[in-house]
Amino acid sequence: MAEAGDVKTLEQRVRIIEDRLEIYNLIASHPPSADTGASDYTASVWTEDSVFDRGAEFARPTGRTAIAAGSSSLEHHRAIEQGIAHFAGLPYVKISGDTAFAITYLQILVPDRVGPLFDVPNHGSSRGFHVHRVSANRWDFARTMEGWKITRRTLRPLDGSAPAREILRGALEP
Amino acid sequence: MAEAGDVKTLEQRVRIIEDRLEIYNLIASHPPSADTGASDYTASVWTEDSVFDRGAEFARPTGRTAIAAGSSSLEHHRAIEQGIAHFAGLPYVKISGDTAFAITYLQILVPDRVGPLFDVPNHGSSRGFHVHRVSANRWDFARTMEGWKITRRTLRPLDGSAPAREILRGALEP
Amino acid sequence: MAEAGDVKTLEQRVRIIEDRLEIYNLIASHPPSADTGASDYTASVWTEDSVFDRGAEFARPTGRTAIAAGSSSLEHHRAIEQGIAHFAGLPYVKISGDTAFAITYLQILVPDRVGPLFDVPNHGSSRGFHVHRVSANRWDFARTMEGWKITRRTLRPLDGSAPAREILRGALEP
Repeated sequence: MAEAGDVKTLEQRVRIIEDRLEIYNLIASHPPSADTGASDYTASVWTEDSVFDRGAEFARPTGRTAIAAGSSSLEHHRAIEQGIAHFAGLPYVKISGDTAFAITYLQILVPDRVGPLFDVPNHGSSRGFHVHRVSANRWDFARTMEGWKITRRTLRPLDGSAPAREILRGALEP
Repeated sequence: MAEAGDVKTLEQRVRIIEDRLEIYNLIASHPPSADTGASDYTASVWTEDSVFDRGAEFARPTGRTAIAAGSSSLEHHRAIEQGIAHFAGLPYVKISGDTAFAITYLQILVPDRVGPLFDVPNHGSSRGFHVHRVSANRWDFARTMEGWKITRRTLRPLDGSAPAREILRGALEP
Repeated sequence: MAEAGDVKTLEQRVRIIEDRLEIYNLIASHPPSADTGASDYTASVWTEDSVFDRGAEFARPTGRTAIAAGSSSLEHHRAIEQGIAHFAGLPYVKISGDTAFAITYLQILVPDRVGPLFDVPNHGSSRGFHVHRVSANRWDFARTMEGWKITRRTLRPLDGSAPAREILRGALEP
């Protein structure tokens, strides 16, 4: 919705829409990069001085090289071998000139290895998956000469504790 | 896809795209508002005479004040303290001038409080979450002087009963 | 992001955006069509010579008539009666002129029929749902005189096996 005194040309409006769709793709590429351990890709979409903050439970890498190293670690590849799916919901995205942010929900699912097989007609047989984590995420972005990049991502588990709710409130701005 | 006899100016086409993206953000803000109990926000995105219909199992509030009261109730805040995550999938959205509707899927997940902790390499330890409900949702919207607002939301559980399927068929219009 | 030497008119840029949003709706309509067994709709969104490849575990129908027949089969309707929800995450979408592709994650959830009822304050009572399958999907699209249609869809389970990861890498193209 246009704000008072904020008259944009058609070209500027189209540019903002393109920004929005580019950021949708950036968020949509995160699960594929995480689930394949694509560290080169990861390094290409964060800025030099970016921060990935997963809370006190995890290391807090700074800079694209350190952040990408998380994707190529032995431990991460062990998770991939066992089966892991990051699953992104519909993001809230707000563009403000050359910066932007998004609030997203993310599930991490893993295939069950024990327990009975379960059949669903026309949909095969499976032990099922369980939802390991659900998190609230805030992504900050900056426009660069090579397109939109991630400057910071902060996530907290949606387990009833307050920090996740603090993140979610970012999607309720007027 | 443009329909026969329906020639739009570039400005009109951009306006429809902006409408679509504004509605995406409106749908994306629903889980954050529900999971934080943001009743002021909720009151701001429904119209005066709106209806929130969750089926016979629940109360059926009418009007933004009554709908927002659901978010500030003691019972709702008990759910938030225990941990709750609304999780929205990709919506189907159709704009028709100054009205629009969307068909969406929504999960409600809650953290498990009992049972063993489960480790996933590089992804921490958790008792996991379980999916409490999955629903089919129809949202009706109207353009107002303050942007797009919700005029009606109807949801039904995807538990094999017919009413949810009736809602979903709205996404299959030609 | 515009590439060097790739100067587009505003109309062309708006057209690409409209393409993108049309494809979002096409992907968003898949769960409603699957969960209602809407074979007429299904026949209308695939091309004549399209292929639906769900892996060696399932039949591999070719052509819109055969693909739509899957939605009207007795077995599929048995799944619908028992309760089934396809749930689509945020897609990665790339348009290239008159073709396009998308990489998506899809969950299949089914309501639990046994076990205790579980209450969540203000969110009713339920036995819950379990996640039967999570898959990586590649969709190929073509522009036709009747809008964008699906030419091929390939899906593989995200159970730790390699083929799903091969699909996901399609979302990491530069």
